Amino acid sequence: KKLKIASIPGDGIGKEVVPAAIDVLHTVAELHGGLTFEFTDFPYSCEYYLEHGVMMPEDGMKRLSDFDSIFLGAVGDANLVPDHISLWGLLIKIRREFEQTINVRPAKQLPGIQSPLVNPNDFDIMVVRENSEGEYSSVGGRIYRGEDEIAIQNNVFSRKATERAMRFAFDLASKRKGRVTSATKSNGIVYSMPFWDEVFKDVAESYPNVKTDQQHIDALAAFFVTNPSRFDVVVASNLFGDILSDIGAGIMGSIGVAPAGNINVNGKYPSMFEPVHGSAPDIIGKGIANPVGQIWTAKMLLDHHGEEEMGQVLLDVIEETTKNRIITSDLGGSHSTQDVTNEIINRLKAK
Amino acid sequence: KKLKIASIPGDGIGKEVVPAAIDVLHTVAELHGGLTFEFTDFPYSCEYYLEHGVMMPEDGMKRLSDFDSIFLGAVGDANLVPDHISLWGLLIKIRREFEQTINVRPAKQLPGIQSPLVNPNDFDIMVVRENSEGEYSSVGGRIYRGEDEIAIQNNVFSRKATERAMRFAFDLASKRKGRVTSATKSNGIVYSMPFWDEVFKDVAESYPNVKTDQQHIDALAAFFVTNPSRFDVVVASNLFGDILSDIGAGIMGSIGVAPAGNINVNGKYPSMFEPVHGSAPDIIGKGIANPVGQIWTAKMLLDHHGEEEMGQVLLDVIEETTKNRIITSDLGGSHSTQDVTNEIINRLKAK
Ligand SMILES: CC(C)[C@H](C(=O)O)[C@@H](O)C(=O)O
Ligand SMILES: CC(C)[C@H](C(=O)O)[C@@H](O)C(=O)O
Repeated sequence: KKLKIASIPGDGIGKEVVPAAIDVLHTVAELHGGLTFEFTDFPYSCEYYLEHGVMMPEDGMKRLSDFDSIFLGAVGDANLVPDHISLWGLLIKIRREFEQTINVRPAKQLPGIQSPLVNPNDFDIMVVRENSEGEYSSVGGRIYRGEDEIAIQNNVFSRKATERAMRFAFDLASKRKGRVTSATKSNGIVYSMPFWDEVFKDVAESYPNVKTDQQHIDALAAFFVTNPSRFDVVVASNLFGDILSDIGAGIMGSIGVAPAGNINVNGKYPSMFEPVHGSAPDIIGKGIANPVGQIWTAKMLLDHHGEEEMGQVLLDVIEETTKNRIITSDLGGSHSTQDVTNEIINRLKAK
Repeated sequence: KKLKIASIPGDGIGKEVVPAAIDVLHTVAELHGGLTFEFTDFPYSCEYYLEHGVMMPEDGMKRLSDFDSIFLGAVGDANLVPDHISLWGLLIKIRREFEQTINVRPAKQLPGIQSPLVNPNDFDIMVVRENSEGEYSSVGGRIYRGEDEIAIQNNVFSRKATERAMRFAFDLASKRKGRVTSATKSNGIVYSMPFWDEVFKDVAESYPNVKTDQQHIDALAAFFVTNPSRFDVVVASNLFGDILSDIGAGIMGSIGVAPAGNINVNGKYPSMFEPVHGSAPDIIGKGIANPVGQIWTAKMLLDHHGEEEMGQVLLDVIEETTKNRIITSDLGGSHSTQDVTNEIINRLKAK
C-alpha cells in the first residue's frame, strides 16, 4: 500500500516540524512493512507569495487534488503577508475547495505534561467542528460610511452540512465512550442556533445508543476549564469549534501538542492534516519548536487511511516520550525539536 | 442621597441571594450615613409567567423606568418555561429596551478560593461586552424545509454601538492598568470582524496613554486559561464577551461569585445589575446558594451611582470573608447563604 502525500510545510516552524513528522511517518512505514509513503513537497507559503504574488499557482489546487492526503505545517506570518491573504489564499481555500467539511481536533491529557488545570482528570475530548459554513460564511457587507456605518455578517447554516458534522460526531462517539455534547447558544442567537438544536435532535434519534446533551457555548467553554473530563465527543459550529479546540489545546499544556484533521467525507478530494498551532515567527530557526502537534497530526493521517493500529502505536510512543519528559521548552523541558523526534523514532524502532 | 432600586429576584436561587444582598446594601447605607436605599420588589419570573402568561405586565417596563437602577437575581428555569420565552421576555427585553448597551463583567481572583488553574497569578480582568447587537441580533430566518433547509442569522455591527463599547473600555482602562485587549476573529469572519478592528484602531487613537493589543477569540479564550494575569480590560462583541466572561467565572473557581452590570450609558433609563450565574434549579430551597456573586453585583451598583468608596469597602469585606474561608459548597466550603451574608454584614459593621 502506497500513500501519496502532498506536504506543505508552509511558514515559520511549519518548515521545522513537517520534516520531523515525515521522518516519523517513514519509520512507521518500515515498522508496518506493507506500507510506503511518497511525499511531494509544495512550497506554498508567505515567502512564495512575496515571490509570486499569490499563495499558490493557478493550477495549485489541481496539482494537490492528485494526492491521497495533504500534510500541512502552518500558514501565515503577518510580518510578511496580511493574514486574510495568506489564510484565505491557502489554508481556508483548501478547506473549502476540497470540501473538507469536518475538522476533528482531539484534546487529550498527555502523561508527564503539566496541564494549567489543577484537576485535569485525564480528559480525552474530540471536538468535531463544522468546517465549511456557519459563522465563517463569506456573505456580508457594509452600508454607509462614518458614524452611521453598519457591517453585516451572515451566518449560514445548512441542514446538509450541519447534519454531516453531527453524523460524523455520532459515528465517532459510537467508537468511543458513546457520548455527544452539542455546543449551542439558542438562548441568545435565535435563528441559527435553534435550527442547530433541531438538527441535533433529529440526528440523535438515529443513534439510540449514544447519550447526548447540549450546552450553551459560554457554559461549555467554562466547563472545559472546570471539568473537562466529563466530555467525550463535542460537536460544534465552525466558530464554536474553533474556540473550544483552542481551549482544548490550552488545557493540554501547550498549543504545540494539539493535532487536527480537515476531513473530506465524500471522498472526492484529499483530506488535510495540520496541527492547531501557527507558524510561531518568534521561535523560527532556533530548533526548539515542539514537533508533537505535527507528529500527532501524522497519527490522524494514519487513522484516516485505515491504519488505526499504527496510529495507536504512534500515539503510545508519543505518550511514552512525554511521560519520560523528553519535551520542548513550551512544555517546560529543554529538549530540541530533533531530540523529541529522535526519541519518538527510536521508540518506534524498538517496537 | 436616596437610591430607588427595583429589585427582581426572578427565579430559583435569585429569590435567595437577592434578599441577602439587599440586607448587605442596607448595612452599607448605615455605614455610609448619608445614603439610603428604597427597594421595590417586582415578582417578574417564570412563576409569574405560569400565572399570567407573560413574564411581566404590559406596563412593566414603564414601572421599572421610574427607578435609579434594577437589581436582578436570575431569570429562567427551563423546567417551567422555555428559555427563549423567559429570557427574551424579561432579561434581554430589559437590556434592549432600556438601552443597556454595555455589559461589564469583572473576573478577579478572590483570596482563599481555589482557582481551577495551577497558576492564576492574581488575575484581575474586566470584560466589557457590547450588549445590544452583534451576533445576538434578532435578524434572520430560514428557507426551504427538509434536506435543503438553510437558516441564516445576521450579525449586525454598527459603528455607534461598537465605538460606545470601546470608549467605555478605554475609559475604564484609564482608571486601571491602562491596557485594552480587543477580542476579534478577523482572520476567519471577514465582514464584521475587520470592521470591529477598524473601529478599535480609530478609538485607540484618542487614547494615546492606553496600551492596546488584539487577539483572535480562539487564542484569547485559551490565554484566559494559560495566562489570565496578562489582561486588564478586554473589549468584546456580544457573543465573544459572553464566552470570555463565563471562562472568567470559571477560572474564579465558581460561577457563583461572578458579578455583572448592564449599563445604560446615555442616562435615559435605569441600568441593571445581575450576577453571571443562573437560577440553579437543582439547589433551590437548600439555603446553600453562594451569595457572593449577587453581593459583588451590589458593589457594582454602588460604583455606578458614584459610591466607589463604599464599593471598595464592600469588595474588601467580600475578600476578607473568602480569605477566612467562610464560603459555600460550590467553593469547597460548608457555609450557608446566610452564614456568608452574616459574615459580610458583621465585617461591614465592624468597619
Ligand atoms: C441567558 C443568555 C441569553 C445570556 C446571554 O448570553 O447574554 C447569559 O448567558 C448572560 O451572559 O447573561
Ligand atoms: C487561522 C484561522 C482562520 C483558523 C480558523 O479559525 O479556522 C485557525 O484558527 C484554525 O482554527 O485553524
